[in-house]
Amino acid sequence: MSLTIAVDLGGTHIRTASYNSESITPVAHYRARTNAHEPGVFDRLVQAIETVWHPDVTSMGVASPGPLDPYTGTILATPNIPEWKNFPLAQKLSARFGVPVHLDNDANMAGFGEWTFGAGKGHHNLIYLTISTGVGGGVICNDTLLQGFHGLATELGHMIIDPNGPPCGCGKNGHVESFSSGTAIARHTVAQIQTGQKTSLQLDGGTLTAKQIAEAALAGDSLAISAFARAGYYLGIAVANYLAIFDPSIVIFGGGVSQVGDLLFKPFQESLHKHTFHPHYLDDLVITKAALGDDAGLLGALAWARHKRNNEMMRVA
Amino acid sequence: MSLTIAVDLGGTHIRTASYNSESITPVAHYRARTNAHEPGVFDRLVQAIETVWHPDVTSMGVASPGPLDPYTGTILATPNIPEWKNFPLAQKLSARFGVPVHLDNDANMAGFGEWTFGAGKGHHNLIYLTISTGVGGGVICNDTLLQGFHGLATELGHMIIDPNGPPCGCGKNGHVESFSSGTAIARHTVAQIQTGQKTSLQLDGGTLTAKQIAEAALAGDSLAISAFARAGYYLGIAVANYLAIFDPSIVIFGGGVSQVGDLLFKPFQESLHKHTFHPHYLDDLVITKAALGDDAGLLGALAWARHKRNNEMMRVA
Repeated sequence: MSLTIAVDLGGTHIRTASYNSESITPVAHYRARTNAHEPGVFDRLVQAIETVWHPDVTSMGVASPGPLDPYTGTILATPNIPEWKNFPLAQKLSARFGVPVHLDNDANMAGFGEWTFGAGKGHHNLIYLTISTGVGGGVICNDTLLQGFHGLATELGHMIIDPNGPPCGCGKNGHVESFSSGTAIARHTVAQIQTGQKTSLQLDGGTLTAKQIAEAALAGDSLAISAFARAGYYLGIAVANYLAIFDPSIVIFGGGVSQVGDLLFKPFQESLHKHTFHPHYLDDLVITKAALGDDAGLLGALAWARHKRNNEMMRVA
Repeated sequence: MSLTIAVDLGGTHIRTASYNSESITPVAHYRARTNAHEPGVFDRLVQAIETVWHPDVTSMGVASPGPLDPYTGTILATPNIPEWKNFPLAQKLSARFGVPVHLDNDANMAGFGEWTFGAGKGHHNLIYLTISTGVGGGVICNDTLLQGFHGLATELGHMIIDPNGPPCGCGKNGHVESFSSGTAIARHTVAQIQTGQKTSLQLDGGTLTAKQIAEAALAGDSLAISAFARAGYYLGIAVANYLAIFDPSIVIFGGGVSQVGDLLFKPFQESLHKHTFHPHYLDDLVITKAALGDDAGLLGALAWARHKRNNEMMRVA
């Protein structure tokens, strides 16, 4: 018997689970707080893996925030875990546990998970987009995860769609993320309130969350509705670009902000149809929600570790 | 002995050539005018193929203007050849010549040619960009030509980089092509002259070509220089996006406008460095000119026909 361990390392929680050969139901699973801004993240991670450890584990997959180098398994830097700079995570875990460790960023792993086990099964060209505090992407082309030369491919949220657009969390301007992420929706709404726009929303210490704005929008607040409409409009431009670039057969939306439904997706659909280069791209195109929910990263890491192990066994055979 | 025929079908010329097994020096080659706006394009194409025909030909590759469906070999519609609408080109050529015919669009074929025989040999992740009257792209990811679900992938010139930007030839707004193509450079320059900008350029019947503007720029005309600087600035934004999306190890520029050198590429480089999401994308990245010149499409069609034939033989074996 051979087991695989999957790790989903998030800014808030570390999740670990062990799985038998072909199953996606864990033998054991565990969840702990990351406490990402306190020292000792690696030790907490090791402890979370030990909790689900089994002597028959033969490989491990890890979904982590990026940017990272999946070929060497190194976290270059991640705003979520400030103590890690050029941190050789896969190498350190592999040395500690004695099994190969395969690492890629959380959006790539979630996309790979949806393709292997979720909404994208059977598709050959897939785009996964997560809309949450940021906007991330994972892409399958010709049945292969697109990683790129440095392993930095498909940073879909950092595509410029208006060079004079608002600032992004990364410091550049006019990215998809700076229009359509939860952070962007909140910042735009706060700015509108500060210019005196009428709304039912109360500025709590100068800030708002996308969740509060979604609630106000569902209750009929027109400023809140327009904030989601704006995010959806730019998301339509972004996806029109991804269609012209990748020509996928499916676009899968994950992430918390994508749960708001029509508030975002009605203006998105209108904008997508308006901006798509040629209507032929939309023929038989599936646009759908992620099927794996919060497990996408974990199951993606599982699928990735199995995939790498199978490739390795084919290479050796 | 087995020969391959390659066809480069352009708006101006039809080029055909036949090649022995592994050579890229043609056994026979031919060039004729397309006369694309007069009836009988298919008959002229057949005649151009007959001119280089040999009894040992076993397959044929065709580079054609798109949009087209490479999986069925059908030209959907091409502004260059108005009489062809949903025209089953590969099927008709195959029926006429009795060999398999493999078709893809000219930019994809030029990219595949540069990857197989030209500036991109040995790279696994490549972007080819042609800057001419339009802007076209061909992309290799993980050693595979990116074609997409409908065969319409990598229309890189039709990525929106400013939704309020100028109109593109396709009817949409703010595409890379509407900022950085030869057509865009000319249209911008004419508009600047019409607003009274000082220049040495003479409006000849209200129009100018990119070539005339390049000559004026090289002679020091500041309006002409600024027109190329603007095109280069937006091209830098576009390539910054392609890096974030594909993370290639090489970007290859082909097409007539890319011959102007520093006029375009100095402002391009500045803009690229300014707009690239993370400096790591630029590490060891090669940015270079196409090596195959006008033969890129023809040699790409040759490489593609051989590649498809090899795949078919592996499948059968």
